[in-house]
Amino acid sequence: MPIFEQVAILGPGLLGASLAMAVRERKICERIVVWGRKEERLESCRAKPWCDFADRDLQKILFGSDLIVCCTPVDSIREMVGEIMPRTVKDVLVTDVGSVKESICREAREASTEESGTFVGSHPMAGSEKSGMEFASADLFLGRTCILTPDEDCPDEKVKRLTEFWGLLGMKIQVESPCRHDEIVANVSHLPHFLASSLGQYLSKRPKEWMEASGQGLRDTTRIAQGDAGLWLEIMKANQSKLSDSLDHWTKSLEEAKEFLRKGEWENLEKFLADGAHLRKSLGSGK
Amino acid sequence: MPIFEQVAILGPGLLGASLAMAVRERKICERIVVWGRKEERLESCRAKPWCDFADRDLQKILFGSDLIVCCTPVDSIREMVGEIMPRTVKDVLVTDVGSVKESICREAREASTEESGTFVGSHPMAGSEKSGMEFASADLFLGRTCILTPDEDCPDEKVKRLTEFWGLLGMKIQVESPCRHDEIVANVSHLPHFLASSLGQYLSKRPKEWMEASGQGLRDTTRIAQGDAGLWLEIMKANQSKLSDSLDHWTKSLEEAKEFLRKGEWENLEKFLADGAHLRKSLGSGK
Repeated sequence: MPIFEQVAILGPGLLGASLAMAVRERKICERIVVWGRKEERLESCRAKPWCDFADRDLQKILFGSDLIVCCTPVDSIREMVGEIMPRTVKDVLVTDVGSVKESICREAREASTEESGTFVGSHPMAGSEKSGMEFASADLFLGRTCILTPDEDCPDEKVKRLTEFWGLLGMKIQVESPCRHDEIVANVSHLPHFLASSLGQYLSKRPKEWMEASGQGLRDTTRIAQGDAGLWLEIMKANQSKLSDSLDHWTKSLEEAKEFLRKGEWENLEKFLADGAHLRKSLGSGK
Repeated sequence: MPIFEQVAILGPGLLGASLAMAVRERKICERIVVWGRKEERLESCRAKPWCDFADRDLQKILFGSDLIVCCTPVDSIREMVGEIMPRTVKDVLVTDVGSVKESICREAREASTEESGTFVGSHPMAGSEKSGMEFASADLFLGRTCILTPDEDCPDEKVKRLTEFWGLLGMKIQVESPCRHDEIVANVSHLPHFLASSLGQYLSKRPKEWMEASGQGLRDTTRIAQGDAGLWLEIMKANQSKLSDSLDHWTKSLEEAKEFLRKGEWENLEKFLADGAHLRKSLGSGK
């Protein structure tokens, strides 16, 4: 049964298009409208079963939408949200899919007026190394976690409504403050990416033929490093201070372990390896 | 067509048992004999189609073998090889499957007499997080790289013979000096493991609930960290100085990249990410 009248998807990239597909498939709303920058892209949207109307004019898209989801690249979400909030009216729910939340939520708060709708940040932790509408899939969200980041004074009912929305797409919901969210993803997502990139970058300066001796271990450890460099630059920019902190803390444990190796403190080194193995096993094999 | 009379497998673990299976399947020799420490384990070997004779008495196993492959855990290979070499006779080829080569090859050289057979180190880069005979598979070696580490004065004909052996199991052969081999694996195998462990160990000290926000990226980056801590301790011990060097060199690039982030040198950070992505893409998706 539809829980929204009209859902607006801003930015029909991998996430935006997958979201529209999933929303249609699960009959979450009556109408799906799409905003995009490029007429050519909108033209292909219009041919899809998950798009009832597409336009470059933001005003036409916002009009009549009771849920607005900003799915543009992370570096433009803040600006977009700043543009949208003053144009919304009470009862409209606005959210986004950005992977860094504090700056976006602050912008939404500052751009809102007394009459504005409610912004609640979302971070659906779904994606792929691929990008673009052509890789979209209605199942992208299935079984993944979505972190909601409401402001302290956000009405519970709005959080509940958004929880229902992502839940219908098969996501597990977690609620955190925007600041806490950014700290968590700095550690469990941006740090691993930085590390994988760093290993790849270091090895790119070594003799090419060495790579013939590499195996699945190196491939797994560096897999996420193939993500789009421009996109990841924007994510790291947006989470600069928390990622820096996380890198500093991690480097401390690393330096300790290097000392165990250098000095031959084998018991300590074995405990270090066992602790790492234990954490990894607790994550399960995943999908 | 058999290229050896009798192949001796010392240590029927994951690698040893897989090797015996593959050797039988490809009819590489007439007879396969197995040495192990535990009578119980040998008893189960005797029931397998890939084992013609199994015994705890090393002398009985060496007798009549023209290829001897030492497949015991990495920390005992050196000692085993030291024990074997003086008992072998001309024309016998001895090799191993250890993942660190310099100390093993040195031991083999020092333990050999004028009458001894020839030792050529092998490092078949095949394995799994699992260990033990029950996970053995004849296809373990297929498409993987095997690094041979002959001493400088090793007759070409011996290297050729061993190249043929591993080649028949489906492996790609690379020849390196023992020292160079250890440097390469320090960089492309032991360094990634250290790094994955370090990330896992660091996160094991953070709040447990953070892990609910982690995704496939973290799981991939830390996958190899679940390898057996005791086994990896022995590998790192055996390659202590080269792994230390590799960690120091890598840490330098890491610290540089951390500075790019901290100081907001975005162009440099993007190049760092792009270099990492490029290296990873060059590795392919692998099997």
